Amino acid sequence: MIMASKAITNGIGVQVEDTKICVVMVGLPARGKSFIAQKAQRYLQWLSIPAQVFNVGNYRRNDAPQPTADFFDMNNTEGERKRRAAAEAAVADMLAWLRSGGVVGILDATNSTKERRKWVLDTCNAHGVEVLFVESKCDDEDLIMANVRDVKTTSPDYKGQDPEKAAQDFRNRIKMYEKIYETIGGDDSEEDQYTYLKLMDVSKQVIINRIQDYLQSRVVYYLMNLHIRPRSIWLSRHGESMYNLDGRIGGDTLLSPRGEAYARKLPELVRQSVGDDRPLTVWTSTLKRTIATSRFLPSHYNQLQWKALDELDSGVCDGLTYQEIKDRYPDDFAARDEDKYNYRYRGGESYRDVVIRLEPIIMEVERSEDILIVTHQAVLRCIYAYFMKKDHTRSPWMNVPLHTLIKLTPKAYGTVEERWEANIPAVSTWRAKGSTAKHENPTPDSL
Amino acid sequence: MIMASKAITNGIGVQVEDTKICVVMVGLPARGKSFIAQKAQRYLQWLSIPAQVFNVGNYRRNDAPQPTADFFDMNNTEGERKRRAAAEAAVADMLAWLRSGGVVGILDATNSTKERRKWVLDTCNAHGVEVLFVESKCDDEDLIMANVRDVKTTSPDYKGQDPEKAAQDFRNRIKMYEKIYETIGGDDSEEDQYTYLKLMDVSKQVIINRIQDYLQSRVVYYLMNLHIRPRSIWLSRHGESMYNLDGRIGGDTLLSPRGEAYARKLPELVRQSVGDDRPLTVWTSTLKRTIATSRFLPSHYNQLQWKALDELDSGVCDGLTYQEIKDRYPDDFAARDEDKYNYRYRGGESYRDVVIRLEPIIMEVERSEDILIVTHQAVLRCIYAYFMKKDHTRSPWMNVPLHTLIKLTPKAYGTVEERWEANIPAVSTWRAKGSTAKHENPTPDSL
Repeated sequence: MIMASKAITNGIGVQVEDTKICVVMVGLPARGKSFIAQKAQRYLQWLSIPAQVFNVGNYRRNDAPQPTADFFDMNNTEGERKRRAAAEAAVADMLAWLRSGGVVGILDATNSTKERRKWVLDTCNAHGVEVLFVESKCDDEDLIMANVRDVKTTSPDYKGQDPEKAAQDFRNRIKMYEKIYETIGGDDSEEDQYTYLKLMDVSKQVIINRIQDYLQSRVVYYLMNLHIRPRSIWLSRHGESMYNLDGRIGGDTLLSPRGEAYARKLPELVRQSVGDDRPLTVWTSTLKRTIATSRFLPSHYNQLQWKALDELDSGVCDGLTYQEIKDRYPDDFAARDEDKYNYRYRGGESYRDVVIRLEPIIMEVERSEDILIVTHQAVLRCIYAYFMKKDHTRSPWMNVPLHTLIKLTPKAYGTVEERWEANIPAVSTWRAKGSTAKHENPTPDSL
Repeated sequence: MIMASKAITNGIGVQVEDTKICVVMVGLPARGKSFIAQKAQRYLQWLSIPAQVFNVGNYRRNDAPQPTADFFDMNNTEGERKRRAAAEAAVADMLAWLRSGGVVGILDATNSTKERRKWVLDTCNAHGVEVLFVESKCDDEDLIMANVRDVKTTSPDYKGQDPEKAAQDFRNRIKMYEKIYETIGGDDSEEDQYTYLKLMDVSKQVIINRIQDYLQSRVVYYLMNLHIRPRSIWLSRHGESMYNLDGRIGGDTLLSPRGEAYARKLPELVRQSVGDDRPLTVWTSTLKRTIATSRFLPSHYNQLQWKALDELDSGVCDGLTYQEIKDRYPDDFAARDEDKYNYRYRGGESYRDVVIRLEPIIMEVERSEDILIVTHQAVLRCIYAYFMKKDHTRSPWMNVPLHTLIKLTPKAYGTVEERWEANIPAVSTWRAKGSTAKHENPTPDSL
């Protein structure tokens, strides 16, 4: 029915068909550039916006797998040549990827001179690609040293080397870069015309220059809201509900007796996992079963109800069993199994719709400290997919057992997961493709 | 069911109970401070966050109704005393209003010196109120002159005076302020610790310093996205639908023959109102009746479908007539009439819920140029309420006739409305409180 050619909407509701962006990281080593690049990639990908990180260090390692600091001395012409070649290869691959359907390419490198940045800008613009520079500046010695420790233990540049020597070499490498490093813009130079975001001391101060379009503004707002203070996110489904017992979806029923037992046990599980003295914020949906599940938690926890955490709306199928859905709407039943992420229930929602409405929740989780989210199977799958970088084709089929507390702890290079079982029996609400079983044991690969 | 005391969620899903914020405008005269203050107030109020503007000029006018520029000379001790007294009175009233339930007070004044800003900060902090400074800097002479023209025609300071003399006096007043004006922060002063947003040349560059909490970050993101380029927003309901004929709500029916006629006429109406050469973006909901209504519009218009523009979800009442709703759910019918803004249909939505899901739409409309939104009665009421500053108690009862194109043009001090009638008959879907009539003529006060 849509007449215009460019009418496809993406995960955040706006066409991105014609937009190609290169996010160019800028900053000295150990300033969290890779962390920011990975977060941005994960966020965009979760919103169905094709995004990919191109790490120049990985290209350079083909030529120079474990260079010492003097490789990065700007007077080392051989080092300079190899580093330049690596940047060129990364940019060429990124442009090819953007041509083949990519939308946001993220160039992860120091890009520490005005000359290098101008080269990246000119190269991208010549290919019709917009450029957003993202500089991470940081003078906080504690943060830098934490990053140095991280790098020496995780970087392939130092694999198998003595940690103390690695740290010393890495600090020397930083010094090489400091000699030539130029911050972006702010001196009436050509760079004042660039589009850039400057994050100083992890968003204590943020400078935003000439952000033009919607997608850039979303990326900027997301990056502004990141913090790196240690914290965890706890996820739980509601306790077993009356509809769960019947194998019915949706509805707004109360808890089964076993669900009630989970609600009573949840404070103890939380105490074991969180500890006594950490303040926790609790978010529920507006549906009875999540509110009931949270009602015995300590009264000094703040509790908030979010409509955005309500279960995926199954429209005309609300309250039905899968067998009833298959009987009444056989084509819909098959279409959903065919593409569970994109299938929208008649008068209801798809997983894609749920992700869109969860976007403000994710933004708020990123801003938050310790938090417990008590929600529903489909919603939990979407939140989990964001943190654990799960694919859209797989996450709607993921098994999320009832009566289990999941703890996610974001780290610099990914998210650590732990689970706490209440050991209170509950039905399984997992369902295999094609199945109409009321309760079915999950297959091993759905765990 | 909620255990904690601070658990009430507001329009953007987060508690604001404990937060009190003073947004302190900073900037020379004619930099759009009042425009920004009014927009922020309207946005927050629309999200059910109590917000109010305290304009120091209005207080000063009690003492000095039409002062000439020399009143603002910093060596004029009498002028200085009166201006200081006005600032003190405005801040005192604002603090009293915050104590009585207000959440965001906006202090609209030049606040042009570090000394004055420190006084505002200390006074607010002593009362437990957070301070967010919002500075508007602008060196674009065209923009400043446009503002000067605006002020001389709209400000009570110059009412009844010769426009040329008024403009000259106002330029002199600006010069008085320029002598003492100090931009905020950036010089390793105490102000580097302040929370502030600096908008330069209408968001060409934005500096964000030490934004701490959620509500501040929402205000900042909103203000970042404003622009002042001239543009209009056109609003239309879909053409008359088959359900409209039956007096049924919700559903996903196609257009009636008269609705089809409106769809065919819409391109002509748009041409009359928009003109031939202005590019227009068209947004519809994902429902058939809005897509069908837009399908004859010129093919070079971009068209986007937004799920967030779908009609208010009437849950279990979807597809019923008002008589059927009253018969089957008499308590719900009465409860909705009692508080139409807050009443949530069983398994569906309230007007309040619709406003929350429209928030990203409003943000995107603010960023956009000319745009036509083809949507539904309740959604259109909510968007209209934002632009025309309509009260929550009244906007759900507003009459939005079918087959009418509404043009809204934001100006510095409000929004101008025009309407274009297609002159194609359609049923009325307006309903008076308590009524179950299928089609009823709107009362004059609902227009």
